[in-house]
Amino acid sequence: MNTQNIIGYSFLPATGKSFKAVNPSTNGQLDGDFAVATVADADAAMQLAAKAFETYRHTDAKTKAAFLRSIAEGITALGDELLNRCSAESGLPIPRLTGERGRTTGQLNMYANLLEEGSWVEAVIDTAIPDRTPLPRIDIRKMMVPIGPAVVFGASNFPMAFSVAGGDTVSALAAGCPVVVKAHPAHPGASALVAEVIMQAAKKHNLPEGVFSHLFDDGYAVGEALVKHPQTKIVTFTGSLKGGMALVKMARERDEPIPVFAEMGSINPVVLLPQALQNRAEELAKTYAESITISAGQFCTNPGLLLAVKSEGLDRFKEALAQGIANVGSATMLTAGICNNYQKLATERLGDEAVTVIRKSDKLNTENVNQALAAVSEISAADFLADEKFKEEVFGPFSILVVADDIAQLEQVLDSLQGQLTATIMAEKEELALYGEVINKLSFRAGRVILNGPPTGVEVGNAIQHGGPFPATSDSRFTSVGTGAIKRFVRPLAWQNWDNALLPDALKEGNPLGIWRLFNNEWTK
Amino acid sequence: MNTQNIIGYSFLPATGKSFKAVNPSTNGQLDGDFAVATVADADAAMQLAAKAFETYRHTDAKTKAAFLRSIAEGITALGDELLNRCSAESGLPIPRLTGERGRTTGQLNMYANLLEEGSWVEAVIDTAIPDRTPLPRIDIRKMMVPIGPAVVFGASNFPMAFSVAGGDTVSALAAGCPVVVKAHPAHPGASALVAEVIMQAAKKHNLPEGVFSHLFDDGYAVGEALVKHPQTKIVTFTGSLKGGMALVKMARERDEPIPVFAEMGSINPVVLLPQALQNRAEELAKTYAESITISAGQFCTNPGLLLAVKSEGLDRFKEALAQGIANVGSATMLTAGICNNYQKLATERLGDEAVTVIRKSDKLNTENVNQALAAVSEISAADFLADEKFKEEVFGPFSILVVADDIAQLEQVLDSLQGQLTATIMAEKEELALYGEVINKLSFRAGRVILNGPPTGVEVGNAIQHGGPFPATSDSRFTSVGTGAIKRFVRPLAWQNWDNALLPDALKEGNPLGIWRLFNNEWTK
Repeated sequence: MNTQNIIGYSFLPATGKSFKAVNPSTNGQLDGDFAVATVADADAAMQLAAKAFETYRHTDAKTKAAFLRSIAEGITALGDELLNRCSAESGLPIPRLTGERGRTTGQLNMYANLLEEGSWVEAVIDTAIPDRTPLPRIDIRKMMVPIGPAVVFGASNFPMAFSVAGGDTVSALAAGCPVVVKAHPAHPGASALVAEVIMQAAKKHNLPEGVFSHLFDDGYAVGEALVKHPQTKIVTFTGSLKGGMALVKMARERDEPIPVFAEMGSINPVVLLPQALQNRAEELAKTYAESITISAGQFCTNPGLLLAVKSEGLDRFKEALAQGIANVGSATMLTAGICNNYQKLATERLGDEAVTVIRKSDKLNTENVNQALAAVSEISAADFLADEKFKEEVFGPFSILVVADDIAQLEQVLDSLQGQLTATIMAEKEELALYGEVINKLSFRAGRVILNGPPTGVEVGNAIQHGGPFPATSDSRFTSVGTGAIKRFVRPLAWQNWDNALLPDALKEGNPLGIWRLFNNEWTK
Repeated sequence: MNTQNIIGYSFLPATGKSFKAVNPSTNGQLDGDFAVATVADADAAMQLAAKAFETYRHTDAKTKAAFLRSIAEGITALGDELLNRCSAESGLPIPRLTGERGRTTGQLNMYANLLEEGSWVEAVIDTAIPDRTPLPRIDIRKMMVPIGPAVVFGASNFPMAFSVAGGDTVSALAAGCPVVVKAHPAHPGASALVAEVIMQAAKKHNLPEGVFSHLFDDGYAVGEALVKHPQTKIVTFTGSLKGGMALVKMARERDEPIPVFAEMGSINPVVLLPQALQNRAEELAKTYAESITISAGQFCTNPGLLLAVKSEGLDRFKEALAQGIANVGSATMLTAGICNNYQKLATERLGDEAVTVIRKSDKLNTENVNQALAAVSEISAADFLADEKFKEEVFGPFSILVVADDIAQLEQVLDSLQGQLTATIMAEKEELALYGEVINKLSFRAGRVILNGPPTGVEVGNAIQHGGPFPATSDSRFTSVGTGAIKRFVRPLAWQNWDNALLPDALKEGNPLGIWRLFNNEWTK
């Protein structure tokens, strides 16, 4: 494992400060001194990215696809070294990380397929009509082109799938944007392993140097320098509201403001309808005990808010949920900081006089540190509505059940919620028609609405939407998961009256790429 | 003509301040006392828009299409009254306004067609694969849904096509977003006429009250209240950099930041290549004398910057351009403020010691006021590069020719330019291949690249892109002209494991709307 910063095809000699990775299960330091990059390094990486962009924005789809496939192969080839290092750095168990690795390589291959198929560029062609009156129509052809060098911040909670070669990097590279990754300091070793894979893959396919760089920093200076750099054209981030908004603010205050796609988490409300509670309270409780506690509750789509009208079914649900939570052993959180924050917030919530504890697990693993114990609690809708703090995310295996007196009050709670990544309704089919307003209110506030399933477990595909109204994300018009994620990194460019030979292949006469195009208002291929 | 503010289906009784429209050709006041709306009116309009949104976001495509067609019919039915009022308020001649009216009704009908065809919602469906390993795939279906109530600022330079029923309003209404228009105070009468048409059309189609409101203000208070209103979800604007950025800043500083699409103009560089200059200097000069001066140079795509390497052909171009400009009579500008600003900036530029005047027209129309005289000037590339002010737009019939010593210096000038709506290259076909870098640099900076034509005259269609990198617009990923303009007002929403009967028709099994959908990774209909 090389612990140096990467700019283009060079490992930078370590000259100054370094930091070590920490195993959150033990608080012990792991092997490796990771070189802290400098502001000058950030500048060099961005300058090289800008230079690379001049070439890479024209790199053909096949080459880009092969590049992504090589990254996937390289990650797989890292084998247990990557999984073990990831687990040591994140506290996440090997089976979860094995799944995440599959998701990561799956994303890379999915994007390779997308590029090879080619229609994602949204080619639109209106040909000339010389004899149109009162004015002739001129030939115009439009397609998506990459926006420019991207800065990607690695996320702590997905050390592979939303980190160095994660969804942001792959969609940016697929779009034709060079990427400079600011590695998350919680998993520098896993980051270093994957970064070297990307560098080698870029070399193998003779891509312009600077198409990828990778910088370490356990503080904020490098990230700030990257976001403020004039050559940076877009920034992506997954993490806290505070962290995301700090980047958004920086990006806005530049001489040239640039877009930031920040996915900042949410409480992912789940409405439990009466009939469903009556018929299958225990099954729902089992589903949610699992969804709340999976990966120590550290998913963006963790269901932090359950919502129901009081009923006998709800009482049974609570009882079964209490049992489910009681059975869940403590789990290591990603970092000591995240765990401390969880302990503090969960304790505050559970100690609030408006809140009743349904159950806090006491199955503490005393062999490891930074342990999160799952907890579910209850509050009346009236008390929930009276205090904004209950709408804030408690990052970890925690959920609060809001109990309404009636459906009108439940709707009031929905009206009070901010934007969400997901919103879920657990219902019997026959009762759904009675709750049109509930569905309406949920769908207005979320990027993805789910029927009868947990919000956790985000499918990576064409139809997924992982992005919702603020503060779930900084722009609800985009997604960070699935093939749609590429749209963050592209802009439409129109060629008017252009010479056919000089047009991009996607727009040429005769459709040499054989892609779907909107040609004179008809979709053809 | 009713001069009152409109909220939903009510004309508000005039209670307070009012203002009058001014004829810029005479500085004389026109008929009508236009009621200045209050901050309370802005609040009422937004509250009603939010209420209307609950219904309007589900309104079916046919009804929305019929609504848009009714608006177009109503505008046509206004006949000469609208054209004459528009001309009196804007100083624009009737033939130009007749064309603009055609564009305005054309946009409305184009969007009606788009809605009726239906595929614009970008339906994407990944069906369930229950036996997939390691995890089953769950059914997910995604489509575009409206983002929420929109605030549209009328633009001064298109009193119909980018005003009350202009491109922003029509694309927002088509998307399913209620619209509150802040009328531009330069043409309140034309605004009032069209606003009443929209109100009547909404009534006719039984749309929820609040789907459209229309407020007057000759100051900034109402606009500010609208942008800051919590129910506002998106803002669109066409105008100056200063005005646009003021709105962007307001929108960002809200508790819930919202997107602003601001089209803030640009200088639209035009590169004249040597062979083209040699072969057809006079023809190019004719084209550009017209493009620079059309509508008193008050188009967003006005070519404010011409760029060439010195040559004998360029000398002939300058001579012919001088003649062309000398033949152009003065024209009334949109407002006294715009005219004063033009006089001031043009005088400054022409008086700059680095600048040589190629020609300023002296054909002053002394019968009218607020007259702009066209001017073209020249500067060396070195001097241009030395002072940022030459890159700023001079709004009006003005252009500066930047003369480079060689192609390398010309490329340096291109490198120094900010984002642009358009970039143009005038070239002989056989020389294009020699200037790949020039084309590259132009296309990196612009939303639309044009070969051998003026940038003025923006086609409204599927393939048009009217939006470029900052500061041309606030977000290069969107357009304000053409069918693509609807994308500003929508966000993807995914339904996971949803009941077929409760899905929007666009996503239902069997494709009842017969639209194009990406169905299990295949485009089908």
